[in-house]
Amino acid sequence: MTSHKPAMSREELSAFLDREFPQIHFGGRTYHVEEVGPLFARLRMDYHERHLRPGGTLSGPAMMGLADLALYAAILAQIGPVALAVTTSLTFNFLRKPEPRALIAESRLLKLGKRLAVGEVAIRSEGHTDLVCHATGTYSIPERR
Amino acid sequence: MTSHKPAMSREELSAFLDREFPQIHFGGRTYHVEEVGPLFARLRMDYHERHLRPGGTLSGPAMMGLADLALYAAILAQIGPVALAVTTSLTFNFLRKPEPRALIAESRLLKLGKRLAVGEVAIRSEGHTDLVCHATGTYSIPERR
Amino acid sequence: MTSHKPAMSREELSAFLDREFPQIHFGGRTYHVEEVGPLFARLRMDYHERHLRPGGTLSGPAMMGLADLALYAAILAQIGPVALAVTTSLTFNFLRKPEPRALIAESRLLKLGKRLAVGEVAIRSEGHTDLVCHATGTYSIPERR
Amino acid sequence: MTSHKPAMSREELSAFLDREFPQIHFGGRTYHVEEVGPLFARLRMDYHERHLRPGGTLSGPAMMGLADLALYAAILAQIGPVALAVTTSLTFNFLRKPEPRALIAESRLLKLGKRLAVGEVAIRSEGHTDLVCHATGTYSIPERR
Repeated sequence: MTSHKPAMSREELSAFLDREFPQIHFGGRTYHVEEVGPLFARLRMDYHERHLRPGGTLSGPAMMGLADLALYAAILAQIGPVALAVTTSLTFNFLRKPEPRALIAESRLLKLGKRLAVGEVAIRSEGHTDLVCHATGTYSIPERR
Repeated sequence: MTSHKPAMSREELSAFLDREFPQIHFGGRTYHVEEVGPLFARLRMDYHERHLRPGGTLSGPAMMGLADLALYAAILAQIGPVALAVTTSLTFNFLRKPEPRALIAESRLLKLGKRLAVGEVAIRSEGHTDLVCHATGTYSIPERR
Repeated sequence: MTSHKPAMSREELSAFLDREFPQIHFGGRTYHVEEVGPLFARLRMDYHERHLRPGGTLSGPAMMGLADLALYAAILAQIGPVALAVTTSLTFNFLRKPEPRALIAESRLLKLGKRLAVGEVAIRSEGHTDLVCHATGTYSIPERR
Repeated sequence: MTSHKPAMSREELSAFLDREFPQIHFGGRTYHVEEVGPLFARLRMDYHERHLRPGGTLSGPAMMGLADLALYAAILAQIGPVALAVTTSLTFNFLRKPEPRALIAESRLLKLGKRLAVGEVAIRSEGHTDLVCHATGTYSIPERR
């Protein structure tokens, strides 16, 4: 599988997400696309009240939402908004308690086929090297016109 | 593995979640514990703006948060709040697009050991029989005092 | 999703597997199709030397092979051998040590679409009610002629 | 998490597996430990008749067995045979059809705690760069004496 230049730039992807999925910013803009590359995307999720559990720990669901968004972003950036992928499955391993700071999610596509895309996501606390959460996911890609 | 009567009633569990995890109601009270039983819990998640994607579809992350809460609730109800379980892994299969209505999550523990609990969750649109989402999860149970 | 009568009987499915996948019997015939029904199959795997770990415990890989076969059988029985499904993903939870006896695997399809099938499998030791292993899997279904 | 030198060398690990798990070689010696490193192991599985499906394709169960062995090997090499890990869960994504040649599995531990170890495995056809199969797994580590 050859790695081609993505169909969308960071700015185009960011603008598309804002326009088509404004709900991800419900309660405050906390998701940011930092970089896109061939079969790759890096996102940042701010340390924000709406993502917290008591005691100030970022919640599991906040991390799961970030991982899903990061994989979706990598697919979208690569093929462009010609056919919108749908999540079919996701697996998460929660490895360490996150720090009280932003999370960085790096998603990488392991396979991008005509009908399915599979990728993995590594989530870390900003500035830290140990993994907080690891995920893999499969997305169904409808027929592209 | 014998199925014992849970350590907490529906009301006790609901009050505990409200007290210890008020963040789940951030933006509006949408999660409700409908029933608890031996190794079992049933929760309802309202069809609420904060859980939606454009077009009015309940989002994947909303369903993932519901599944995690339902499994956590089943464990907590069974053993009581003597040791709070921590999610170690979750796997989701998104099967069908949900209806524009509440979701019902039924969680069932497949194993409740001294150190780990494993359960599955079936999520359906209220009043419908087909599964919208199926999940399995593993939770780590700290040493119980 | 309506449950239709499967396209293949138990005997037809069993004969098809023997003919097209003789390798599953490499080292001894240990897999048996016991029953098929709408979106359902039940298989038995004998307690055989080739499936054991030291000490006589049935191995994880033996159980994983059984689960994959049970899901594949349920799909094949339902739609017939018009398009052969390919495993795209599998998740296993190993819950209890199996008994030194046969394993019974019951697979149930949660969704049977045009392009993907998703199912779950419950594996128990013959004669016992507690789950030994639980699995979910997704299979890709090629274009049907 | 600091990466320490493994407790076992490649030769020690290989000898231990041969001695304690002779069943993995049932039907022919096809698994080989090629390298161990901090939180890492690389294994090779030969292209052998017993691992094949009709048409000569390496089977899913053969790949699943290889992945489980590779993760187990990485854990064992790192902590030594003081407490033998038990597989609690595994998730597989089958990405591409393998080539008719040996498979190389590289396992990497994402977390090695006191009670649980989590790792991922990348499986490729020998000499090829594209992933054939990707897996993640969680292992329970009994109390170490």
